[in-house]
Amino acid sequence: MPRYALKIEYDGGPFAGWQRQKDQPSVQGAIEAALARLEPDVPSIAAAGRTDAGVHALGQVAHCDLSRDWEPFRLREAVNHHLKPAPVAVVDCARVDEAFHARFSAIERRYLFRLIARRAPLVHDRGRAWRVARDLDPEAMRAGAAHLVGRHDFTTFRAVQCQAASPVKTLDELRLEVLDYPGGTEFRFHLRARSFLHNQVRSIVGTLERVGAGAWAPGDVAAALAARDRAACGPVSPPDGLYLAGVGYPEALFD
Amino acid sequence: MPRYALKIEYDGGPFAGWQRQKDQPSVQGAIEAALARLEPDVPSIAAAGRTDAGVHALGQVAHCDLSRDWEPFRLREAVNHHLKPAPVAVVDCARVDEAFHARFSAIERRYLFRLIARRAPLVHDRGRAWRVARDLDPEAMRAGAAHLVGRHDFTTFRAVQCQAASPVKTLDELRLEVLDYPGGTEFRFHLRARSFLHNQVRSIVGTLERVGAGAWAPGDVAAALAARDRAACGPVSPPDGLYLAGVGYPEALFD
Repeated sequence: MPRYALKIEYDGGPFAGWQRQKDQPSVQGAIEAALARLEPDVPSIAAAGRTDAGVHALGQVAHCDLSRDWEPFRLREAVNHHLKPAPVAVVDCARVDEAFHARFSAIERRYLFRLIARRAPLVHDRGRAWRVARDLDPEAMRAGAAHLVGRHDFTTFRAVQCQAASPVKTLDELRLEVLDYPGGTEFRFHLRARSFLHNQVRSIVGTLERVGAGAWAPGDVAAALAARDRAACGPVSPPDGLYLAGVGYPEALFD
Repeated sequence: MPRYALKIEYDGGPFAGWQRQKDQPSVQGAIEAALARLEPDVPSIAAAGRTDAGVHALGQVAHCDLSRDWEPFRLREAVNHHLKPAPVAVVDCARVDEAFHARFSAIERRYLFRLIARRAPLVHDRGRAWRVARDLDPEAMRAGAAHLVGRHDFTTFRAVQCQAASPVKTLDELRLEVLDYPGGTEFRFHLRARSFLHNQVRSIVGTLERVGAGAWAPGDVAAALAARDRAACGPVSPPDGLYLAGVGYPEALFD
């Protein structure tokens, strides 16, 4: 069966997460339902990152096996047609080798977390960013973040239900971008690693927010990491601001 | 009664427009209901621009008269509290002179129109921009737009139900900004004038889109304007991409 890689955008708001579930809407379920309109008996699809409820994607990658030989552009158009009105879209599509696996071939995941500090509730970015009503100190957050970059045991920043074999991960990048936002400031956290633990990004951002607010000193982040104890973590941020921004493979999949 | 100016953001999607209506949700109605929770018998509020159904605001300005002497910060917080969960927020508030009128004192209105050209349907900007599936030529749109800047009879670009006394308006700015957008291109039209006719921005953008698509030549815009005939206008764009971006007054209202 020909295999196709799909680059997918979605708004996680209305979904219980990526993974198909019996009684709740999921992104995987929405895409599989669209594929089922094209061909009968399409096998389950696999994705690079199984995002949680409410988490968005700008560049999730999944693969699917179809029996027909689809022109990638036509396949993308057909899937998008059947996805309506779900807030999910295939933004790119490519024919890939049988050996390609969206999850196991991936060598890099990139996440974006949008945190907006302003007094007024969000309007245009409601559900698309985490809003806090207090000012945050970007330099303190950067100093705290610096302790997390590199290879560490991230037990502190890992959900108890995380199923990864090891809590040791290498965080290749944790960069904070500061932008003007109407009535406040937007903080964009850019994170990059080969792979992440369950809730790792939200645990890190929730902890750094405490540093930005002055409740934690930057050095407290190093102490929390060294504790290797989930109880040492700051509050886990809500999912609203989190986006799976992109996935890297040994060779570029899309043009 | 002390008078207050409110700077307001809203998502126009769920509203039948700014203006209060008997049986449909309106932005004015939402704000007046929030004010009624603070004080009884608050008079009707007035806004700088009466936006249509589906049109958004980044910086609408309205004024209200209250009997109590509110600290502006507290008033903003209290109104926002009672506005929940409507997608409307007061982002700034100031005490103003009795002679101030949000509509009649305004000397400038700024609009933003977001037009996104890409094949895939919009996900994160659904309802927040007009998506067209074809490529558009920015230089052709700029050449077409140049014919509209200045003082003209805009009868062609005016809704038949427009109630303005005269179709002659001075368009001070019509600037096209071109941005990368995932899987396509975003075109941001920035328009500025003392005042606009009903549907003027959407008529202009819908016409310029035809120029960008190559269906009209840039010079056809000049001919349409000269015709002073509503029938000479291109298609009116949907409201999704339109934002009342800001309102200017002789003196700055907010810090």
